[in-house]
Amino acid sequence: MKGMYNDDQAFDLMLKDRDSLVYEFHELGVPEKPGNLAFGTSIVYPGKVGNEYYMTKGHFHTILDTSEVYYCIGGKGYMLMESPEGDCDIQEFTPGKAVYVPGRYAHRSINTGNEPLITFYVFRADAGHDYGTIESNGFRKIVAEQDEKPVVVNNPKWQ
Amino acid sequence: MKGMYNDDQAFDLMLKDRDSLVYEFHELGVPEKPGNLAFGTSIVYPGKVGNEYYMTKGHFHTILDTSEVYYCIGGKGYMLMESPEGDCDIQEFTPGKAVYVPGRYAHRSINTGNEPLITFYVFRADAGHDYGTIESNGFRKIVAEQDEKPVVVNNPKWQ
Repeated sequence: MKGMYNDDQAFDLMLKDRDSLVYEFHELGVPEKPGNLAFGTSIVYPGKVGNEYYMTKGHFHTILDTSEVYYCIGGKGYMLMESPEGDCDIQEFTPGKAVYVPGRYAHRSINTGNEPLITFYVFRADAGHDYGTIESNGFRKIVAEQDEKPVVVNNPKWQ
Repeated sequence: MKGMYNDDQAFDLMLKDRDSLVYEFHELGVPEKPGNLAFGTSIVYPGKVGNEYYMTKGHFHTILDTSEVYYCIGGKGYMLMESPEGDCDIQEFTPGKAVYVPGRYAHRSINTGNEPLITFYVFRADAGHDYGTIESNGFRKIVAEQDEKPVVVNNPKWQ
């Protein structure tokens, strides 16, 4: 996740902390065929790097126009989404709420609460993951804490 | 659901009961494109028709080799599955458990508990529903109560 947060110094400090696990996911493999669905559980831990909340790296699908469905099991936060053309959307995660990520949208889960953000996700098994575009460019928006509340602001690192 | 249970007389009796809603589902529409995913919530109420537990009608997908993922939100029961060749499988639903319905398998949710069986489901939006095959032939197996426990038995009505 190096370079993915706005505050590199805070990220380096986090790495020195032995409790610095930001997120993990658990998935049973299925063959990557268009008729199959991959599914699993994503856990984003609570925390911040500087004033930016813990989040997943985020990705496009390699088959760009394939969607993904998330169901929030626990915790609270946001799904940040962005199309290649720069259309942005953000949806709230609360327990029992489903979030639909339309095809073509990069997506990243962000934990703005004090508990683990746990979501159940499903996507077409052959969709594939493109992490490189986000690694290079970032998202146009970030979710940061201001006055003890999450706010969506422009990403100063976006290129 | 007429004719779908083994005990037609018990079914007719149930229809006279004003609380005879067996199941319902709630879904937001999405365009039926192969890159999209349809999702929603299914509720099977507790109850029996004769000794057979309340269940959904069950269906194949019109695009046969497309899978479906279920996540159990509440209640308990089973997912009964059957391929056109007669391979049968059954998986238990308990809260927090995901069930994978492989492509080519007809599937039916069955509530064997005392609370509503609530599941969150996701399938490829263009998969389509074939209810007719099950309406004509039934499933090879049914789940019925024996000695106050659910058991899987051959369906005497299967053809």
